[in-house]
Amino acid sequence: MIKAALSVLLVLVTMSSTFGKYIPKSGKRIPQTLSRGWGDQLIWAQTYEEALYWSRSRNKPLMVLFHLDDCPHSQALKKVFSEDNKLQKMLDEDFIVLNLVYETTDKHLSPDGQYVPRIIFVDPTMTVRADINGRYSNRMYAYEPSDVDLLKRNMEAAKKLLKSEL
Amino acid sequence: MIKAALSVLLVLVTMSSTFGKYIPKSGKRIPQTLSRGWGDQLIWAQTYEEALYWSRSRNKPLMVLFHLDDCPHSQALKKVFSEDNKLQKMLDEDFIVLNLVYETTDKHLSPDGQYVPRIIFVDPTMTVRADINGRYSNRMYAYEPSDVDLLKRNMEAAKKLLKSEL
Repeated sequence: MIKAALSVLLVLVTMSSTFGKYIPKSGKRIPQTLSRGWGDQLIWAQTYEEALYWSRSRNKPLMVLFHLDDCPHSQALKKVFSEDNKLQKMLDEDFIVLNLVYETTDKHLSPDGQYVPRIIFVDPTMTVRADINGRYSNRMYAYEPSDVDLLKRNMEAAKKLLKSEL
Repeated sequence: MIKAALSVLLVLVTMSSTFGKYIPKSGKRIPQTLSRGWGDQLIWAQTYEEALYWSRSRNKPLMVLFHLDDCPHSQALKKVFSEDNKLQKMLDEDFIVLNLVYETTDKHLSPDGQYVPRIIFVDPTMTVRADINGRYSNRMYAYEPSDVDLLKRNMEAAKKLLKSEL
């Protein structure tokens, strides 16, 4: 009897938490996260302007990551990227992070074209670090899942900040 | 005995789902959502560029919502906004939606200054609808929680698209 009452209570509590809220005709959706799966524990900037502001004010380098949900290369890199604790820890502690599925109007972020996945580092002086690149000459800022150690070395390079002109 | 085994199993399953994943020193964080609480069932654009692209390609008006997490006026409006099913349904079916906590570089989005909360409509022709405003002459695009019906009337006005010049 008590068990039955508890069950009813549980059902009521579950219902009340969603009861009356708007649900799309196509069914309930999972809320989109700013991480998009690239590191749920990181604090992601939403826009490039916001990321630049954080980078300057906290004097930390910025990593901008271009990717697409329907690109298998992006998805393969995402798996390795999100599961590498050393990489995630460095990003969390020493970097400002931004991931984008839509290109910005700033051409400096596509030094050799717009492709995904593509990782660009930006110094707190707002200088795009075109000198920090991956191993592919035709797509200088692309990384494969097997390039994750190179990516971490590049992050170390990006942590050595350019001298501020101020 | 079976109960104990089940309990152990449950603990193991719970642990394995987080085991080995990066956790910040300050403790586990709740992943940020693109909705930021303004409607978890809506599909939010991440950036203004992305929102303009969707608006043009789907021929739907865009609502841009500027707010701040530590602004009590924003939070009060958010509660009413997110709980109004008619408003949420209209936004989901007839609008492109974008919420921003950081200003863009586009001055057209701040016709009478940068303040929060502020709601600006943009026509698919990429024209900012400065003619669609709230009830405060000193902050034309601000809305209080009690203005939610006016906001819905303004949404109806934004749905009447400007004629394309093409």
